[in-house]
Amino acid sequence: VTRGRDRALRAALAVGRAIGESRVITDEELLERFAGDESDQEPVQPHAAVIPASAEQAAAVMRIASEHSVPVTPRAGGTGKSGGAVPVQGGIVLSCEKLTTIKEIHEEDLVAVVEPGVVLGRLHEAVEERGLFYPPDPASLESCCLGGNVAENAGGPRAFKYGVTSHYVLRLEVVTAAGDMIRVGHRPVKGVAGYDLPALFVGSEGTLGLFTEITLRLLPGPPHVSTLLAPFPDLPAAGRGVGAILAAGLIPRVLEIMDARCVDTVRSEGAALPPGAAALILAELDGSEAGVEADLQVAGTALDGAGASEILVASGPVERERLWKARRDLSEALGRSHSHKISDDIAVPRSRLVETLERLESIAADHHLTGATFGHAGDGNLHVNFMWDDPGLDGEADAARAATMRLALEMDGTVSGEHGIGSVKRQFLADELGPGVLDLGRSFKRLLDPRGILNPGKLY
Amino acid sequence: VTRGRDRALRAALAVGRAIGESRVITDEELLERFAGDESDQEPVQPHAAVIPASAEQAAAVMRIASEHSVPVTPRAGGTGKSGGAVPVQGGIVLSCEKLTTIKEIHEEDLVAVVEPGVVLGRLHEAVEERGLFYPPDPASLESCCLGGNVAENAGGPRAFKYGVTSHYVLRLEVVTAAGDMIRVGHRPVKGVAGYDLPALFVGSEGTLGLFTEITLRLLPGPPHVSTLLAPFPDLPAAGRGVGAILAAGLIPRVLEIMDARCVDTVRSEGAALPPGAAALILAELDGSEAGVEADLQVAGTALDGAGASEILVASGPVERERLWKARRDLSEALGRSHSHKISDDIAVPRSRLVETLERLESIAADHHLTGATFGHAGDGNLHVNFMWDDPGLDGEADAARAATMRLALEMDGTVSGEHGIGSVKRQFLADELGPGVLDLGRSFKRLLDPRGILNPGKLY
Repeated sequence: VTRGRDRALRAALAVGRAIGESRVITDEELLERFAGDESDQEPVQPHAAVIPASAEQAAAVMRIASEHSVPVTPRAGGTGKSGGAVPVQGGIVLSCEKLTTIKEIHEEDLVAVVEPGVVLGRLHEAVEERGLFYPPDPASLESCCLGGNVAENAGGPRAFKYGVTSHYVLRLEVVTAAGDMIRVGHRPVKGVAGYDLPALFVGSEGTLGLFTEITLRLLPGPPHVSTLLAPFPDLPAAGRGVGAILAAGLIPRVLEIMDARCVDTVRSEGAALPPGAAALILAELDGSEAGVEADLQVAGTALDGAGASEILVASGPVERERLWKARRDLSEALGRSHSHKISDDIAVPRSRLVETLERLESIAADHHLTGATFGHAGDGNLHVNFMWDDPGLDGEADAARAATMRLALEMDGTVSGEHGIGSVKRQFLADELGPGVLDLGRSFKRLLDPRGILNPGKLY
Repeated sequence: VTRGRDRALRAALAVGRAIGESRVITDEELLERFAGDESDQEPVQPHAAVIPASAEQAAAVMRIASEHSVPVTPRAGGTGKSGGAVPVQGGIVLSCEKLTTIKEIHEEDLVAVVEPGVVLGRLHEAVEERGLFYPPDPASLESCCLGGNVAENAGGPRAFKYGVTSHYVLRLEVVTAAGDMIRVGHRPVKGVAGYDLPALFVGSEGTLGLFTEITLRLLPGPPHVSTLLAPFPDLPAAGRGVGAILAAGLIPRVLEIMDARCVDTVRSEGAALPPGAAALILAELDGSEAGVEADLQVAGTALDGAGASEILVASGPVERERLWKARRDLSEALGRSHSHKISDDIAVPRSRLVETLERLESIAADHHLTGATFGHAGDGNLHVNFMWDDPGLDGEADAARAATMRLALEMDGTVSGEHGIGSVKRQFLADELGPGVLDLGRSFKRLLDPRGILNPGKLY
């Protein structure tokens, strides 16, 4: 351990000489803010943090870290849910906080070029001002950064219609573990010259390279959006509602489900939700005003047929924003309701949604925990929360998490729909992938990072 | 050469012993149909062809080929445009023609599971019968197969709104070069457990593995579709029309452009196109009937403002299908107009579309060739054709192709938007990727196929 610390500090000194001492932090108190993320991974303080001001400086950091064989954990917004930004093996945290330039928004090409430290919400505002649209919208959008979004392949509610981050990354400037700079991908929307390397880097959780410039595809902004709420008397009916919307030929941009506890929590956060619902569907439709009006009718009929207690349309942007603000704060609000909480984000085939929700309720009961589940029903992507107050239940929570992962795999699903594996879910990865695919992933890692210095202790 | 042939025939003999002699073809006449594709790559006859009837048999073929170090070229529909299915180094062609089962279409999960030899058009019919939708639609859809679509990451007109094949591949069963069977990806729409390996295999042109089972994402079928034609007095005006549609906030499912020669050719194939147009925009809008009606109005106003000579709406499915049939036959029809033709499929940023079209006209004139360009304007993806009759112009055609590739790269575009590199465009790949990214691609190839037996002579 001491040797690791000494080596990290020697590397930090060399980084200071190369890119300026003011770019290097080794003061223990100042290092605290680089220790944790928003998962239940225990924070770990790095030995040093470096804050490059350019891609070239970031490359210099990687070259020096590589020479010294010192771990480097890239950090963007630090809002991850799987421990991805936690420097579990110490070493250097490479922070993107000074790489915050929106380099270009091109209205005709429908392209944005950003640095990794740009906050997602800022990009949303910048493109929406021009009538454009960047769909990915994880709940942390006011603080998460594009670099982290790319590293984790972030999704969000709008992924149902519009897909996840990987569908928007056209080109990446990547600093490799050895400190080389490469550019992969293309500026036009389509391109098949060579293997799809951007797709391999997206979702690689900082283990294959560092992104210093990100070229993103944009869309024309939808002229009109409407939000629809439908409370249901029970979860199976809500599950039928999801199926009925799709069977009617609609592709809402958002198709969310919440259980009773989540509905109560969102209401307590200030959103106008109906009381007494055992489950709720929240759908958003976008397009031309006439199209949205027509689709609302179709959706209403479908939800009604599935047994919705009532159907409410959120009127106007203020009410919509209040609803979404409360929805985005849901995870935190659930956290405040008990002294302990763990969250997971499994995904299952849509036809297994109701069965999964019911069995999650049983898992919570079996382990004496309070369960609360919400998620992106259209994608079968569920955010599963277990809460408890008695510290004696910590072991039960671990067992409930393991049971949840087994359930996801039994349903032919995945242990992570959008949060990533990081350090938190490593123990479940092999169960999903099997030894052959696990080895294949590891061999890619060795190829791109032979010394294993990029975000060690994560993913594979 | 003789040694290669002997080795291939020994391997073919071993394959016959392993999976049945009736599955192996070595008769030279019968081998002819495995020699070519639909590119201008010279056909090359393999030493043997094998026709496995199951994934296990395909794996056995790969194991034997690997032991004998014999090249294996996978072949699905053989409709590729870049030489991907041509066994340029001889050896064994592995044909998917008996792997033609649609294993599953799940309406609630919106998932289809197919074998690689399923013809795309057959999948379209099967899902559309159930009110579902699989968007990718390369022009060869009546004969191309899903295995080839995945290998080449096929696109087509509808890619503008709906994306290309990679956006629909959820899970792949892959036979590796060594003959191992692995499964990568997941059945739910979302999943981030490990690197995005399906994305790496999609578009790998048969050089990384053989796909024996493909799980595809489906969508609900759009209830209504309308097709809109707008002739323009010149190409720049048509280019402005493309921009105007997007600036109006529309995302048509198709947004195509054609030059005068293509318009004339499509008309001569039986489609009701207006005479005398110097350029044409063909757009398709889908969604609810009311939404499409509203969008048609917006699109009409946008195209009118850009200078369209008139705006026509294709009335009804029969007229639409005749139009599309003629559009799909366009490449072949252009081929019939002269004794020689070469085609390319560059993509450029949308804002460079008009400049690119104008410079393509100059390239044709400079080289005494007849040029004809059409393509997916929304994606900046152009199908560039040069035709000639005098065999003395063959060298000019090569020079025009090289100039076209230089032009694509000068525009910050790509040498292939959807057809792939194969054998035809290998010489241009390094210009696009640069040495670092080229090496990275090669290192992935070495990792997955250390003996270099999978589709040698292609891509990298």
